[in-house]
Amino acid sequence: MNDHTPISSIGEFGLIDRIRKIVDGRDRDLLMGIGDDAAVYRPSPDALQLLATDTLVEGVHFDLTFTSLKHLGWKSLVASLSDIAAMGGVPRYALVALSLPAKFSVEMVEEFYAGAAFAAREHHCLIVGGDTTASSGNTVVTVSMVGEVREQQIRYRRGAAAGELLCVSGHLGASLAGLKVLQREKLRAASSPTHQPDLAPYTAALEKHLMPKPRLDLAKLFAEVAVSAVIDISDGLASEVHHLCRSGTVGATVYEHNLPLISVTQAIAAEFHESPTQYALYGGEEYELLFTMSDKEFATLESLTGDVTIIGRVEADPGEITLIRENGEREPLRASGWDHFGRPAC
Amino acid sequence: MNDHTPISSIGEFGLIDRIRKIVDGRDRDLLMGIGDDAAVYRPSPDALQLLATDTLVEGVHFDLTFTSLKHLGWKSLVASLSDIAAMGGVPRYALVALSLPAKFSVEMVEEFYAGAAFAAREHHCLIVGGDTTASSGNTVVTVSMVGEVREQQIRYRRGAAAGELLCVSGHLGASLAGLKVLQREKLRAASSPTHQPDLAPYTAALEKHLMPKPRLDLAKLFAEVAVSAVIDISDGLASEVHHLCRSGTVGATVYEHNLPLISVTQAIAAEFHESPTQYALYGGEEYELLFTMSDKEFATLESLTGDVTIIGRVEADPGEITLIRENGEREPLRASGWDHFGRPAC
Repeated sequence: MNDHTPISSIGEFGLIDRIRKIVDGRDRDLLMGIGDDAAVYRPSPDALQLLATDTLVEGVHFDLTFTSLKHLGWKSLVASLSDIAAMGGVPRYALVALSLPAKFSVEMVEEFYAGAAFAAREHHCLIVGGDTTASSGNTVVTVSMVGEVREQQIRYRRGAAAGELLCVSGHLGASLAGLKVLQREKLRAASSPTHQPDLAPYTAALEKHLMPKPRLDLAKLFAEVAVSAVIDISDGLASEVHHLCRSGTVGATVYEHNLPLISVTQAIAAEFHESPTQYALYGGEEYELLFTMSDKEFATLESLTGDVTIIGRVEADPGEITLIRENGEREPLRASGWDHFGRPAC
Repeated sequence: MNDHTPISSIGEFGLIDRIRKIVDGRDRDLLMGIGDDAAVYRPSPDALQLLATDTLVEGVHFDLTFTSLKHLGWKSLVASLSDIAAMGGVPRYALVALSLPAKFSVEMVEEFYAGAAFAAREHHCLIVGGDTTASSGNTVVTVSMVGEVREQQIRYRRGAAAGELLCVSGHLGASLAGLKVLQREKLRAASSPTHQPDLAPYTAALEKHLMPKPRLDLAKLFAEVAVSAVIDISDGLASEVHHLCRSGTVGATVYEHNLPLISVTQAIAAEFHESPTQYALYGGEEYELLFTMSDKEFATLESLTGDVTIIGRVEADPGEITLIRENGEREPLRASGWDHFGRPAC
């Protein structure tokens, strides 16, 4: 088979047939997937429906020189899966809208969909529709996701109460650390084509950047403990602490020395002469969850998973959001994180 | 107020607040709209859920030199609303994902959302979420739409039976005719800045291009008549006849002299020395519906609305799709319509 089949040679409808073969899947509630004007499904009885959408733009959110199309497909799904996790829900159906520059071959589209379909299968949801169009500029992917949640299990951003613990899942800053390494390798490869990088020491950070995992596992555990507020921190921890406090009309204190950092993240920050705390606070693209609960409930949660960390406490003063440095100094926690319209924070 | 407020001056979250003010709306089933990781709604009892998504790309689907941002906002919603209509459903909730180049000011985003919110209000649905990101290239809009439909009222592409009538709503070719006029005016304005166009004679075509109406009115009538198959013809009549026949494993005959054309469309085609039949068959962006039904049911439908036309008949031979010219000559109806990856048909 030719590896560079032009999309124009099989047309938009030929392309849809190819995509359908890759993402094809069924469940008993799906009456129509790809192949009509809309997908059709029967919602679970008594479940609320969740709707989320996320866009990834080439040159803003990803660089195809070091992001494989499979990784891009995976990550496109994860962005929306993480939103469903943050509501305490389970994902059901995804729509994938893809705008492709002329350089894309049929095989490249198939590679993207292989990654997207893998992410869907791993998280028990189905890609049931989408739209594939030409792009006059760069590659743009928008994934919209439908999830479901029982009313008593839904978790909002609002709801944090003064005195509760401020917690995060997983570890922080590794996605940005991985990105830094990939960007450095891109520059090195450009200046020295024979350069053989040894990326093994950075694996954990590279994986966190290229193949992040949505915390649907944690969303499931949240059904068993009283979590008062949850938010996804893909835009960066600091800005999401602000979001959560604004939604709950509370304040917060964050302790620098409590921020969970793995050693690879610290090593990479050191290589770049940068602060791992900055990575943790402003790095973004983590797809971890920030949440609040009582000390007692946290003890229960900790008995179910080791992958959660207390990073601070909810305070009564609305908008008073403080970072306590390792040396004990207090400073206001700046909100600016991974804001696409402002300056990058790092 | 400054009319050119840079988005960076208010940030992504400031922008979301502005958008929320424009699209704000509630219904009793919506538990959470814009402002959390996902929107949350309670589905109507016994209703199936419909999911559709459509992307519009600057330079491929629209030209901002003659498409106002309000019109773009309107049209972005209509593309998905039309998909819901084609399933026999009613729209409920929309997600808007917008990728914006640096030239966009806050006021421009507000103008876009004013058009999108107007389309939502007019069609009784709510914009409940989205994602706004920077674009490294052109403007890209993806709207995802959730609709609902009772199981007995759902209409698929499949289901056409030999001997039935092939029908369309509204009239054809006017959207492309309007586009041709707008493109001509753009060229004239570029070569002669003092040129004062008189666009009044073209109003009907310009409106069809810039502010198309989804046929939700017809979807509602379909509940009262036995329609065997329905498809949205936004990609062009000819390709959708092929789609409908492929889905139903049937063929079709289309009569050139039956294609509904308004006089403005014919006049514009004449000005460009082009065939109005080509406009009708391959123009696309119509947002009308193509559907099949028995003669008897069509008589009932015609008693309810005058805005439907018989253009041909469903034939038994799968894939045998014939155009009968006004002079009686028969030829295979070419499928290629508005295929973004192939050559434009006109």
